[in-house]
Amino acid sequence: MAPATSLLTDHYELTMVEAALAAGTAQRKSVFEVFARRLPEGRRYGLLAGTGRLLEGLADFRFGPEELEFLAERKVVNEQTLNWLADFRFSGTITGYAEGEIYFPGSPLLQVESTFAEACLLETYLLSILNFDTAVASAASRMIAVADGRPCIEMGSRRTHESAAVAAARAAIIAGFTTTSNLEAGRAYGLPTAGTAAHSFTLLHDSEREAFEAQVATLGKGTTLLVDTYDVEQGVRTAVEVAGPELGGVRLDSGDLVDQARWVRELLDSLGNTKTRIVVTSDLDEHAIAALRSAPVDVYGVGTKLVTGSGAPTAGMVYKLVSREGNDGEWKDVAKAATGKASVGGRKSAYRRINERGRATAEVIGIDEAPELGERDRSLIVPLVVDGVVQPGFTGAEGVKAAIARREASIQELPGAAKQMLRGEPVIPTIYVDEN
Amino acid sequence: MAPATSLLTDHYELTMVEAALAAGTAQRKSVFEVFARRLPEGRRYGLLAGTGRLLEGLADFRFGPEELEFLAERKVVNEQTLNWLADFRFSGTITGYAEGEIYFPGSPLLQVESTFAEACLLETYLLSILNFDTAVASAASRMIAVADGRPCIEMGSRRTHESAAVAAARAAIIAGFTTTSNLEAGRAYGLPTAGTAAHSFTLLHDSEREAFEAQVATLGKGTTLLVDTYDVEQGVRTAVEVAGPELGGVRLDSGDLVDQARWVRELLDSLGNTKTRIVVTSDLDEHAIAALRSAPVDVYGVGTKLVTGSGAPTAGMVYKLVSREGNDGEWKDVAKAATGKASVGGRKSAYRRINERGRATAEVIGIDEAPELGERDRSLIVPLVVDGVVQPGFTGAEGVKAAIARREASIQELPGAAKQMLRGEPVIPTIYVDEN
Repeated sequence: MAPATSLLTDHYELTMVEAALAAGTAQRKSVFEVFARRLPEGRRYGLLAGTGRLLEGLADFRFGPEELEFLAERKVVNEQTLNWLADFRFSGTITGYAEGEIYFPGSPLLQVESTFAEACLLETYLLSILNFDTAVASAASRMIAVADGRPCIEMGSRRTHESAAVAAARAAIIAGFTTTSNLEAGRAYGLPTAGTAAHSFTLLHDSEREAFEAQVATLGKGTTLLVDTYDVEQGVRTAVEVAGPELGGVRLDSGDLVDQARWVRELLDSLGNTKTRIVVTSDLDEHAIAALRSAPVDVYGVGTKLVTGSGAPTAGMVYKLVSREGNDGEWKDVAKAATGKASVGGRKSAYRRINERGRATAEVIGIDEAPELGERDRSLIVPLVVDGVVQPGFTGAEGVKAAIARREASIQELPGAAKQMLRGEPVIPTIYVDEN
Repeated sequence: MAPATSLLTDHYELTMVEAALAAGTAQRKSVFEVFARRLPEGRRYGLLAGTGRLLEGLADFRFGPEELEFLAERKVVNEQTLNWLADFRFSGTITGYAEGEIYFPGSPLLQVESTFAEACLLETYLLSILNFDTAVASAASRMIAVADGRPCIEMGSRRTHESAAVAAARAAIIAGFTTTSNLEAGRAYGLPTAGTAAHSFTLLHDSEREAFEAQVATLGKGTTLLVDTYDVEQGVRTAVEVAGPELGGVRLDSGDLVDQARWVRELLDSLGNTKTRIVVTSDLDEHAIAALRSAPVDVYGVGTKLVTGSGAPTAGMVYKLVSREGNDGEWKDVAKAATGKASVGGRKSAYRRINERGRATAEVIGIDEAPELGERDRSLIVPLVVDGVVQPGFTGAEGVKAAIARREASIQELPGAAKQMLRGEPVIPTIYVDEN
């Protein structure tokens, strides 16, 4: 059995359940929604990721003996609540945007419908996953846009929490990265992994030549040799001498990459290595990748900036109660009025308005009633969990594949401005339609 | 048995082992060091965290049947390497700064001495943990400095990866936060947890008054009531009516907190609630906390900015081979020359120079030979793992307690400028002493 995910949550989710159980309000049917009030500053769109992961962990969101013992010992909640938690398994319904979908401010990314107690409990867990994975996917998507067809490798594991690294690799692949360096991501999600050698491998050996010979002897001539440990020009020459014309690639990890890529390309060509690829990997982000557009670079390896969301390390999503039953059994829309954080009550529907050229023109959000869709418009909300049962197709390797396909189609629909690095407003407006 | 941590690594660590095994260089004794080339821009010092966590996971850094099957199936490495991995357990020695210690550019935070193959394998895993945990602890430490004795609660779980959230809570407590909202952090490390209610709890009920009554009935009059769901003034008045003079606290989560804290304090006092505390929780970081210094705030709740390192989400530590044996059995210092990323070869020692007033004046790093310590100087490197055996005192709840004590003492030593929010150079210089 996988470790329980139920304590990956905030203390107050449980005290709220306790108080609601005592007050007789815990069983009120409720709808919570996940959305982002805004995109990170200057970003034109967001890319949703994490949905598959949160569905994978939902079955393990249970309170077993170890979790209950901790809660009892610490007096986090009382006896009545402990009994309720012991029986807890999520029995409600979750709908939302499919993983890999593009989103905008206000998009109802997840809708959790259940009793207040059940839906309340999931808040922190759902937000943790969506906020991190989406931050990485959204940053990754900008990098992919400016890489303009050149492959990108995710290699940021060492720059973020060891488990977050696995999620980051998964999110990057969903956004369009071709491979990851993270082995656990490869194992858990069937993702392609790649890697060759670091500077330490060169330093281990008595000369750069011996190191290259050792690497080529084991990994083959098609491997990529890291040529900047000592002197780049000498490194390139030695690499070609050792591996010959079949040398797969050389990697540049320091210095002025634009300038270096140019003369290294010329040098490789002059040595007859016209097919040897140039891989660059030094502190890249979307701006550095854009600056390298004109340089003869074949592959980008991206680390730090990718796994930290390139300036936006969290997606800023929130989880808000938007509607709930009263004692009379009537549904009541609810919203808070807090300054700068007001929410919009009522259960949302959402579609993307698509014009005759197949381009998205607006994110249309209906409140309480679903607005009528035009012929080309695309409904955005799909069932993810129905009466406690996770729907097929969203989890594991299959889920990642589906998310990649969804992302490809959704990016295709976006106006061209989405691919530009210019900071600006969301590339399409969010329009609220209130049928009431 | 805990899940293996061995695949939380980069593909290239394994291909390097494979190539070194084939070349006969895998068994060369090697020393790798972890250090940060620089602090995040403008920061005056860093606070090391994560050491306990990496030691906890070291025993599970093994390759069991599942891991080996994945590596074989994907042909990540060959048969010889799989056999070597099957037998792998780290048998070397790790020394380094104690968790909770202050550090500066170049401080040798971890030194891993073993065969190249053993030490190489750990790179990604060690860096992931130290880079994340230290980023959070360093940001947290600045917040604690400006909070100036007022308690800070960690509540950022929902803004970072669900497992990273646990590590972030632990790092925040090491840095001086008093409590966390994260229950798993409470369970795993014996940390104090806290929490009361969110806006959804108020919205669930038919009126703010009913919600407050439900909360007070269960959590007692000493609880903290969230008063900004509708109207803050009315919220405060209702809270006092419901809980009376014993009301523990009111929480403000939106709007102009400086202004609000002032008039809410006056209002509470005028109602006789002079002991009711004011808790503020809206997007706080060290700058917002500094701005609230003059306001009558009792407790800060910090989320997003804490768990994302307040602008520096990763500590930028690297893992470099600094010395290794040759075929002749002689140790050889090694360093790469890559532009802007040059490293300093040779095994380091480190001490903090302390003046007659007990204040730190320099981070002194010796190369190959330990420089002589002055009377008050403090040696910084301690044994963490000896011949594969994790030394006692660094892991679990005990490790966190020791790290808190270490941090308190080390912060105490820093020049006063460390506590200022002004951006600047590291508060003491790093001095290299080369005995050769």
